[in-house]
This record gives sequence, structure tokens and C-alpha cells, in this order.
Amino acid sequence: MSSKHFTPAVTIREVAEDAGVSVMTVSNVLRGRGRVGEDTRQRVLEAVERQGYRPNLTARALVERKAPTLALMLSCITNPFYPEFTLAANLSALKHERHLLVCNTDHELDRGTSFLQQVAGSLSDGVLVANYGNLPVEELIELQERGVPVVISVWELPDEPPGIPCVTFDSKGAARLAVEHLVELGHRRIGAIIGSRKNGIHRARYAGYQEVMREAKIRRLAADERFTEDSFDDGYRAATDLLSSRPDLTAIFVSNDLPALGVLNAASDLGYSVPEDLSVVGITDIVPARQSRPGLTTVAIPTKELAEKGIGLLVDLMNGRASDTTVIHTSAPRLIVRGSTAAPSND
Amino acid sequence: MSSKHFTPAVTIREVAEDAGVSVMTVSNVLRGRGRVGEDTRQRVLEAVERQGYRPNLTARALVERKAPTLALMLSCITNPFYPEFTLAANLSALKHERHLLVCNTDHELDRGTSFLQQVAGSLSDGVLVANYGNLPVEELIELQERGVPVVISVWELPDEPPGIPCVTFDSKGAARLAVEHLVELGHRRIGAIIGSRKNGIHRARYAGYQEVMREAKIRRLAADERFTEDSFDDGYRAATDLLSSRPDLTAIFVSNDLPALGVLNAASDLGYSVPEDLSVVGITDIVPARQSRPGLTTVAIPTKELAEKGIGLLVDLMNGRASDTTVIHTSAPRLIVRGSTAAPSND
Repeated sequence: MSSKHFTPAVTIREVAEDAGVSVMTVSNVLRGRGRVGEDTRQRVLEAVERQGYRPNLTARALVERKAPTLALMLSCITNPFYPEFTLAANLSALKHERHLLVCNTDHELDRGTSFLQQVAGSLSDGVLVANYGNLPVEELIELQERGVPVVISVWELPDEPPGIPCVTFDSKGAARLAVEHLVELGHRRIGAIIGSRKNGIHRARYAGYQEVMREAKIRRLAADERFTEDSFDDGYRAATDLLSSRPDLTAIFVSNDLPALGVLNAASDLGYSVPEDLSVVGITDIVPARQSRPGLTTVAIPTKELAEKGIGLLVDLMNGRASDTTVIHTSAPRLIVRGSTAAPSND
Repeated sequence: MSSKHFTPAVTIREVAEDAGVSVMTVSNVLRGRGRVGEDTRQRVLEAVERQGYRPNLTARALVERKAPTLALMLSCITNPFYPEFTLAANLSALKHERHLLVCNTDHELDRGTSFLQQVAGSLSDGVLVANYGNLPVEELIELQERGVPVVISVWELPDEPPGIPCVTFDSKGAARLAVEHLVELGHRRIGAIIGSRKNGIHRARYAGYQEVMREAKIRRLAADERFTEDSFDDGYRAATDLLSSRPDLTAIFVSNDLPALGVLNAASDLGYSVPEDLSVVGITDIVPARQSRPGLTTVAIPTKELAEKGIGLLVDLMNGRASDTTVIHTSAPRLIVRGSTAAPSND
């Protein structure tokens, strides 16, 4: 695909004139119809290029048996993680000369299924799934078995590969970094707010928290843990509930930034000063984490890399350079210390 | 487009069998090739429907001369306004049985031009432009003259229609509401931070501010005004600069929420208490406006309505039910009072 600026529309007639063939022949070449000799075909394609004729992509896709878009499925575009991911995926897709068709399933399973049914393998010849949590892996495997390239990124669970090519990061290690930070600051009364069910999507993050608590010989109490949805408001509600019943906690580990930002607001509304009375740490490093006051201490996951490697893997898969069992690991998460964590006060 | 759940892949052979015709005939019907009688054509299409055969959309688009997507151009998906807008546009497009192809131009003109050149009229048969500020209207008019339906939403300037169908809102009225709120609280030392050049995209908002100041007989000083970019960081920098040189301001009108949130952080970093020492008001009501502490007082613009009416107008235009001069007005902006504004203190 060229990226020339607009010029007055070139017609198929001008292309035909330039190539010294009939309009019908140009049309046949572009649509892959009729009998056209290879020399003529080349001459037409060169004239198309020279004149800057804007080929009908839909037609060309049919001819090349290659659709001009990649599809990105995500669950919630208004969760700040996804715009950042989408931006990086978009730029990466453009480097591979594809536009990105974005499907926001809005947490509705039907919408994702319907989207896949309608675009996978036709309008888009590859699908990057960023919200595997919302879509049964079985459906993706079925799609894959039909020959449609499917890649999952972000995959949370490096130890449990999905049977679909994926890009994964060390989610358990991210949680470990976050909780180790609290322990090193001297916290012993540490609560946890997990943005999924106990055995749900954040189970590896929960396991990382458990591990560090065990290593630090801190007794975990079920009363200090909450399992909720991965949203700002759910973080707010879970923290309000948790801090009301366990007011002597000095720190809260939250499995994701968006609910962690809700926790900051809940703490403020309950009269806690952060970090003096309560430390809060999240995971991801979404943009609002650095804009909040205090800034949110968090463990940054490589969002841009996850998007870029996801698109890269999809393209590799389409070109036969990756297989159904390819698992790509990103670089390691890293701790970003901001104003929301400090040593516990002495009282 | 049906939205049935996945069933084992139906082959073209099964469709042919059901319709009592050859595979070639089914293919001809789907691709619009060859000679097929109308009765046979109907029988094939019914069999396709009955079997839940997933027609190749690219092929169907060629046959129906109708592309299966609408394109949305925006400048910056990580600006929280756009995900909210995109979500609403996406849902609205789905109601019209179209997927939404999202192009994030990332503030680069070339990228928008290249996108339009590649998809408009082929892969997408209509374009909704949400970032007209970044794209010369001339290019859109040229596109329109080529027969590609183009709609602008959001159009900021109801009094200056662009010659392209658009959805507009009363941006000057929004600014008036914001500044009137400050005046009614008793503020007289009011600064302004405008997220564009003086005669740029926010000029109607600036005019609304000027009007109310004049009506309230408050002398405006150039030293109390800053013109900057429409981002969090630029709001932060502009406020730092403004408050350093004019520390006795008691209120700041900001022409958009994102820079207004940056202003809140700058005020906090300079030691101002909001709203005790300084009131801040924005425009838009993006999600972070209600999540910040204090919450941002703002004038809500009808984001969802702008997206829905934009898609609706685009579809109307494609169906000949709107013209190049159609201008649609949304409902009026409304003031949302939160914690960032209060009466000035007496000292």
C-alpha cells in the first residue's frame, strides 16, 4: 500500500491508457478474472502504481486472497489499558501494511462471538485477542482449526499455555515485586484486593502475593482479602468494605491499577492519608497511575511490547513462521515507586 | 449479518447440496459471477441463510457494492474522550450492521491522509471524522466530491459549518456555563487556560469566556490567559506558569477537562488547596473528571449523543437521507458541580 498524498482521482481509464490495454483488461487484472498473460498483468500493475490509481482494497483482497486488516478484540476500550495497547497495536499493524479493525466487546460474550463470525478469515485475515478472559478459549481454538490465524496477547499465565499462540508476561513475578516492596518497607498488616475471582484471571497475581507473604512469614487472613471485578468502582467498593472491617491494615496490594486508583479514592473518603496511614500498590502502570495524587506505586508491565509482539506473532503465524504452540515472553515487569507507598507509621 | 453462535463450519458443498445446485453455482451467486437465474439465486441465498454458511464478507461487499465497515478517524485514542466516543460509535455502528474500523492518526496528518486514501470508498464506505482539527477540511471535501460519504462529529463551531455534514454542539454555550458558574460563586480574579491557539479549535470556547467576563464587567488581562495544547501535561505546564506569575488568581477556567486535570495537579504541587485557594472548572466530563480528588467541576458535553448522531448521519448520508449541508445540533451542555469549585475565600 502506498501512502502518497491525495492527488486528483485517477480513473481506471487513465490506467488502461498508460498500460496500452482496454479498461476491461485492467478490471480483469484487478479482479483476477478472465485470461490475462503475465506480461500484460505486470504492465497493468505497473501502470496502476505509476498513476497512483487507488486500487479497491476489497477487490484486491479477493485477488490476493489476503484481507487488508487485522482484527483486535478487546473487552473494554474505556479501561485506560486498552487505548494504550490499541495505539501500539495500531502503529505496529501499520508497519505490516494492515489497518486495525477494533472490536470492543464491551464485556459481552455474544458480541465477541458475532464479531469473530463475521470478520475472521474474510474482512480480517488474523485476529489478536486482548480479552481472552471474556471469550472461551474453545471458540478461539475452533477458529484456529478453521485456518484463521489467532493470537492471544495479553496472556496472563505463562505456566498454562492456552494451545493458541500467545504473548505472555510474568504476572506472578509482577505481583511478587509489588508485595515484596510492601514487605521491605516494613508492612506486616497487608490486605489484598484481587480484580477477579480467586481462581479467575488474576490467579497468578494472587499466587505471587501468597508466595511472598509465606516467605515473609506473614499470616494471611481471609478477612484481609477481597475478590472483585477489575474496575475503578469495584476497587473503590472493595476497599471501602475491607477498610471498614479491617481498619488497622497498613497496606493494600491491588492486582491491577484501575481498581487500585479506586482504592486510593476510597481511602481518602474514609479519612486515611496515603501513604502515611495506608500504602497502596497496583500492577500495570496505566497513564492515570502517574497522574493521580499521590502518584500510584505500581509494577509496570510492558504494555507496548505486548501489543507489538502480539501483532508481530500474528503476522509470523500468517506467514508460517510461528506455530500453534508458540509462546512469546516479554521483558520482565519492573517496580515504579511513587507517592502511594511508604514505611508504616509507628502508632 | 446474522449473529448466531459458532457452529461447526458449514462448507460451500453443504450449501450447494441443500439448494440442489452445483458448488460452482453457489460460488457464482456469492461472487456475482456467471449467469444465474433469479429463482436459483434466491434458492442459494436461502440455503446460505439456513445452513448458517458464513459468507465471505469481502466477496459479499464486492457483490453488493457495499463495504462492511464504517471508518472512524480520531487523533489520539489515549485521550480519554476518544475511548468513550469510540465505544458509543462502535455500538451505534453495530446497530447499523457495520463494524467500526478505527484509525488513530496519533496527531500525524500523513497517517490520516494515508488512511483515507486506502480505506475510504473501498474497505469502508463511509468515514466519521472525530479529529477534524488535524485534517484540512479541503481533503475531506475532496473525498466527499469523489462520492465517499464523510461526516464530521465533533464539530466545534455551529456558527461556521464546514461544508461537510456534521454534528455540532454549543461549545460557546458550554464555556459560558463554566465561567458563569465562577462569576456566580463570586470570583473576579479569573484566569483562562485554552487548549488551542487563540484562533484555533477552541476559539468558540474562548469567545464564551470573553462574553461572560464582559457581561460581568471583569477586566480581562492578557497576563491571566494562556494558550496551549489540549493535553494533561500542557495543562500542568500552563498552570504552573500562570500561577507562578499571577499567584492571586482565585479561579481558572480551562477549555477542556484533560488540561484541567493537569491544572489540578499543578495547583497541588504549588501548594494551593482546591477549592479553598483556587477554583478550577473544565469542559467535557470525561470519566477521570469524576474520579479525581477533588472531583472536577465541568460542563458535560453530550459525548455519547455526538457519536451516535455522527454514525446515524453517516448512514443517512449513505442512504440519500441527508445532504452535504446537513448540520445536526445535539442537546445542550450542562454544568456538573463537583469539589473543584467554591466561593473565593475572604483573605
